[in-house]
Amino acid sequence: MRGSLIGIVMGSDSDLPIMQEAAKILDDFKVQYDITISSAHRSPELTTTYAKNAAKKGFKVIIAGAGGAAHLAGVIASKTSLPVIGVPINSSSLNGLDSLLSTVQMPSGVPVATMAIGKTGAKNGAILAIQILSLKYPELKKKLNRYKNRLAAETSKKARRINKNLHKD
Amino acid sequence: MRGSLIGIVMGSDSDLPIMQEAAKILDDFKVQYDITISSAHRSPELTTTYAKNAAKKGFKVIIAGAGGAAHLAGVIASKTSLPVIGVPINSSSLNGLDSLLSTVQMPSGVPVATMAIGKTGAKNGAILAIQILSLKYPELKKKLNRYKNRLAAETSKKARRINKNLHKD
Amino acid sequence: MRGSLIGIVMGSDSDLPIMQEAAKILDDFKVQYDITISSAHRSPELTTTYAKNAAKKGFKVIIAGAGGAAHLAGVIASKTSLPVIGVPINSSSLNGLDSLLSTVQMPSGVPVATMAIGKTGAKNGAILAIQILSLKYPELKKKLNRYKNRLAAETSKKARRINKNLHKD
Amino acid sequence: MRGSLIGIVMGSDSDLPIMQEAAKILDDFKVQYDITISSAHRSPELTTTYAKNAAKKGFKVIIAGAGGAAHLAGVIASKTSLPVIGVPINSSSLNGLDSLLSTVQMPSGVPVATMAIGKTGAKNGAILAIQILSLKYPELKKKLNRYKNRLAAETSKKARRINKNLHKD
Amino acid sequence: MRGSLIGIVMGSDSDLPIMQEAAKILDDFKVQYDITISSAHRSPELTTTYAKNAAKKGFKVIIAGAGGAAHLAGVIASKTSLPVIGVPINSSSLNGLDSLLSTVQMPSGVPVATMAIGKTGAKNGAILAIQILSLKYPELKKKLNRYKNRLAAETSKKARRINKNLHKD
Amino acid sequence: MRGSLIGIVMGSDSDLPIMQEAAKILDDFKVQYDITISSAHRSPELTTTYAKNAAKKGFKVIIAGAGGAAHLAGVIASKTSLPVIGVPINSSSLNGLDSLLSTVQMPSGVPVATMAIGKTGAKNGAILAIQILSLKYPELKKKLNRYKNRLAAETSKKARRINKNLHKD
Amino acid sequence: MRGSLIGIVMGSDSDLPIMQEAAKILDDFKVQYDITISSAHRSPELTTTYAKNAAKKGFKVIIAGAGGAAHLAGVIASKTSLPVIGVPINSSSLNGLDSLLSTVQMPSGVPVATMAIGKTGAKNGAILAIQILSLKYPELKKKLNRYKNRLAAETSKKARRINKNLHKD
Amino acid sequence: MRGSLIGIVMGSDSDLPIMQEAAKILDDFKVQYDITISSAHRSPELTTTYAKNAAKKGFKVIIAGAGGAAHLAGVIASKTSLPVIGVPINSSSLNGLDSLLSTVQMPSGVPVATMAIGKTGAKNGAILAIQILSLKYPELKKKLNRYKNRLAAETSKKARRINKNLHKD
Repeated sequence: MRGSLIGIVMGSDSDLPIMQEAAKILDDFKVQYDITISSAHRSPELTTTYAKNAAKKGFKVIIAGAGGAAHLAGVIASKTSLPVIGVPINSSSLNGLDSLLSTVQMPSGVPVATMAIGKTGAKNGAILAIQILSLKYPELKKKLNRYKNRLAAETSKKARRINKNLHKD
Repeated sequence: MRGSLIGIVMGSDSDLPIMQEAAKILDDFKVQYDITISSAHRSPELTTTYAKNAAKKGFKVIIAGAGGAAHLAGVIASKTSLPVIGVPINSSSLNGLDSLLSTVQMPSGVPVATMAIGKTGAKNGAILAIQILSLKYPELKKKLNRYKNRLAAETSKKARRINKNLHKD
Repeated sequence: MRGSLIGIVMGSDSDLPIMQEAAKILDDFKVQYDITISSAHRSPELTTTYAKNAAKKGFKVIIAGAGGAAHLAGVIASKTSLPVIGVPINSSSLNGLDSLLSTVQMPSGVPVATMAIGKTGAKNGAILAIQILSLKYPELKKKLNRYKNRLAAETSKKARRINKNLHKD
Repeated sequence: MRGSLIGIVMGSDSDLPIMQEAAKILDDFKVQYDITISSAHRSPELTTTYAKNAAKKGFKVIIAGAGGAAHLAGVIASKTSLPVIGVPINSSSLNGLDSLLSTVQMPSGVPVATMAIGKTGAKNGAILAIQILSLKYPELKKKLNRYKNRLAAETSKKARRINKNLHKD
Repeated sequence: MRGSLIGIVMGSDSDLPIMQEAAKILDDFKVQYDITISSAHRSPELTTTYAKNAAKKGFKVIIAGAGGAAHLAGVIASKTSLPVIGVPINSSSLNGLDSLLSTVQMPSGVPVATMAIGKTGAKNGAILAIQILSLKYPELKKKLNRYKNRLAAETSKKARRINKNLHKD
Repeated sequence: MRGSLIGIVMGSDSDLPIMQEAAKILDDFKVQYDITISSAHRSPELTTTYAKNAAKKGFKVIIAGAGGAAHLAGVIASKTSLPVIGVPINSSSLNGLDSLLSTVQMPSGVPVATMAIGKTGAKNGAILAIQILSLKYPELKKKLNRYKNRLAAETSKKARRINKNLHKD
Repeated sequence: MRGSLIGIVMGSDSDLPIMQEAAKILDDFKVQYDITISSAHRSPELTTTYAKNAAKKGFKVIIAGAGGAAHLAGVIASKTSLPVIGVPINSSSLNGLDSLLSTVQMPSGVPVATMAIGKTGAKNGAILAIQILSLKYPELKKKLNRYKNRLAAETSKKARRINKNLHKD
Repeated sequence: MRGSLIGIVMGSDSDLPIMQEAAKILDDFKVQYDITISSAHRSPELTTTYAKNAAKKGFKVIIAGAGGAAHLAGVIASKTSLPVIGVPINSSSLNGLDSLLSTVQMPSGVPVATMAIGKTGAKNGAILAIQILSLKYPELKKKLNRYKNRLAAETSKKARRINKNLHKD
């Protein structure tokens, strides 16, 4: 598990606060990643180079976030056979519905694994990437199971806390 | 006004019945065009070549039609400085809302001149292309004015016909 | 690559014509799969058993299709750390918008890799599953690259055919 | 009418400010309830246990609130024959449309009694729960009628006050 | 359990094919009901009388179905303290989104238990009504549990049948 | 033109800042009106009385504003033959789409003259009411024409001001 | 009540089957009308002339139906102080949502009394026009009341018929 | 390239902060323009005069921005054969969906080149106008190519900066 296994890419630097949520999760799981900016529309050649070199650089999965007519994930998926995860970002007045539909409604043959709109989607993009990697790196499976247990444990803890607080009143 | 001045391109052969409406209008105005298929996602290199060569081939305007996560017009617009007209096509269960938003919500710097969904949009794409060409080819201006007058005359004629039919009853 | 590597599951037998599109793709790639029906709401225990046993049965990826308040993929994702691919099915009057939002808007920690609505989504679910498997089974990578080339070649062929047909007129 | 007759459950502690509106109404009607957190996706086993024990614990109705791909009410309804009331919570960028559709579009055989999005829905979930309980506990019928009269009286009072204020100007 | 315990009412006779789905379920459970037509807008007095007499006639629950600006369930809920179940009917060009929002977005104090759009919602309205009645009539609880088991068994059966059919091929 | 010719009614006192926009316009035109609160759902009898007495009290037009499942205008229209103008108010998380559809999608025979969502709609409700009154009170026609001219003049003035400001820069 | 009191106008002859529903209602009420076609976009001068002459020709109300970016009613309202009723027509792939929003969301000062989408809206446009006329022509008030009673009577009759039919089974 | 080649027009002075984005781009490209206010609905004659004189004044392209039932671009397009670019402005509670649909869904024969909602659309309207002008003024082509390169270069720069910042942490 040496080198960056995951490429995180976003269409604009204003997407960084969203996409860093993916990076944080990967940090927690100690999975190395590369993070950069490339716009499907403003820097199409950079994006093509990115997509074409992704496998050679050792990436196993790409997580691409974009807003508006969000083509970034789709453009990358058209140029690599790696799994591409798309994170729709809410950056126009339409609440992210435009980026969701632009990301998910891909044509036959070129899938984009679409996540929820915004930060939740960025986090889940990282989890999905780790689930995919775990196919090859079994040590990640244990971590994922621990993570799943922790999610459940946190909810139980919150449930107990809420009971206490409400009974105090 | 020799050679094809307008490139019509669509993402799939199933889009042909829609995009031929644009071709018919151009035939009426005796404006030469080239018509082809290229998918942003399934044949990305063909699309890149198409966009990069468009100006060299003498095209002045491109009309691009696509459905679903309709990236075709945007991908072409990212690679040429010619005006690109986008026709959203209703080919998924979402009634063309997905293709409309994927076509129109382009980021700063890379416009796509978006038309109505479907056949109406394809026809209007051709009219807009002719309006643009008329900047350079003044003979088209007269034709456009005649066309505008004909639209009005046809409506007047329909108005008279409707009056007759209803008064017969 | 022995045994079923992929589990296809759907909420109702009326979803079969959609989800068989995934099966056909897997057949083309000679990837073994298991296909069954289990409803998140009508047979919740069957679904729980399915999700909990999926990894043990050797599944590496699950493709789950459902319509309406489409919880199937999410319920399975809550009970396994395998990657879960969700296919929203258009089976209510709302054109699949309900199943899309119910599938894609998953909370932090429990991703569902959401595909396009309907048959296109089912096909792409299979392609994504193969992309994921190719991480472990490199022979699939070549097949995916050939598939990608075939997609491009088919588009080129259609482009040539359309030119011929239109020039005959 | 001893013990908690109603279970209020929500998917996340961030939903508490919404769901406490239900609790306040039940306090006003002096109907005992239990309030807790359990996530359909993050703590699925806790949720299963909750749903399966609900009737045994003496609950007659369950009020479940969740946001995004809001599966909580549906998952509980799949595992109990008690009436389940769903409160869609607006916690994503889509204004609660996602949680509304995920809650209301349940398949045949597994209803969720869906309320308005947000605080109004939480309040009304409590009123509906009391209407249901009143079938068995007739003392609640009188309270409901008094409540209905009070709603009308408050509106009349506001109408009078508005008249005064406007006539002063 | 003598006399009609449930009132089914719809806004127009064109809604009958939808609302009869509720009646069929009640027949299966041997729960007596009354079924009629009354429009919130075209026969407001009939509707008022219906709502005001509902409790006196022995109804315990009302199931109201309507399309478009679907006010029927809300108007009835404003005039009775019985639980009112609303079934949005898809009878305009907007696919039932208008009737869904008109039914579910009720103001504080006047809940309508909203079901899915169309036939599924009508069926589920009947199931919810039976769940509510079961609070007072425990014999219905057993039937509901049997019904729940049957739903699961039918899904299992379909799963087995699908396996057979696919393996024959 | 003695006495209140127009009744303004709204579902809640929180709607007052919106509906006062209608009142201001009527003040400008010196048309007398009555303004009050009555909820279709919380004070249904008050609403019925209001609708039934409206013509007797001398009202010629009713302007009704409400949010959410906005039934107020429709309920009044069901009980009077006066023209009823509906103002959808944006008071839920759905941006007024719910109130718009609940107000406009009325069934055959019971029209509600629906205005834009919010303050603009309230103002326009007043203008439409005056246009209607002008049928009987010709002095209002002149005022309406003056108002129309003033709208145009104000726009011209703004156009001149914008030119000055921009040329200064 | 001599001469045409109401002008019905539509944007295209394909709208005639919808707008004739308005004409039928006016025939039933023996109110004279003029019916014609004029497009806001294709015959703008015809439309301007129509709007400017409407009052002179004796029209008291205008009913305008159009689809897509439905500007007809708004354009007419901008040029006359007569009440203008807008009927959104479902003629694009967006189910009439585009024509509804284009008709109803008019700016301050220029109201369009918007009806439901399609035939129901056309019928209701006629009823609203008669309600408006009744301000000046009291004989119409009686007819409107009789119409209202007939609506209620028809619903009662349908209710009785449904009871009979169901009890025969 | 003397005199104003482009006319920018908007429906209201509140649209100025949006439409000035178009002006800034034109300033950058040293393309002269005229900017003014004219409402399709409040000053229809001013708008007619504007549209009819546009070509005579030397305008080659018109950029029209409006909100709500945004008819401005369409009304102008109905009266000139110049290319008309529409910028939907988000000025109602519906997030600009109303202005987008009112602008883009134009009928056959009368195209409006629709841009993204809001500031992005205003900027892109200017870019598209320059692309159109470049047909006649080849010096603009070079500028457009430089602009395109600058867009790409800026993205590359941001990508390098993000790498530095993240590696510092």
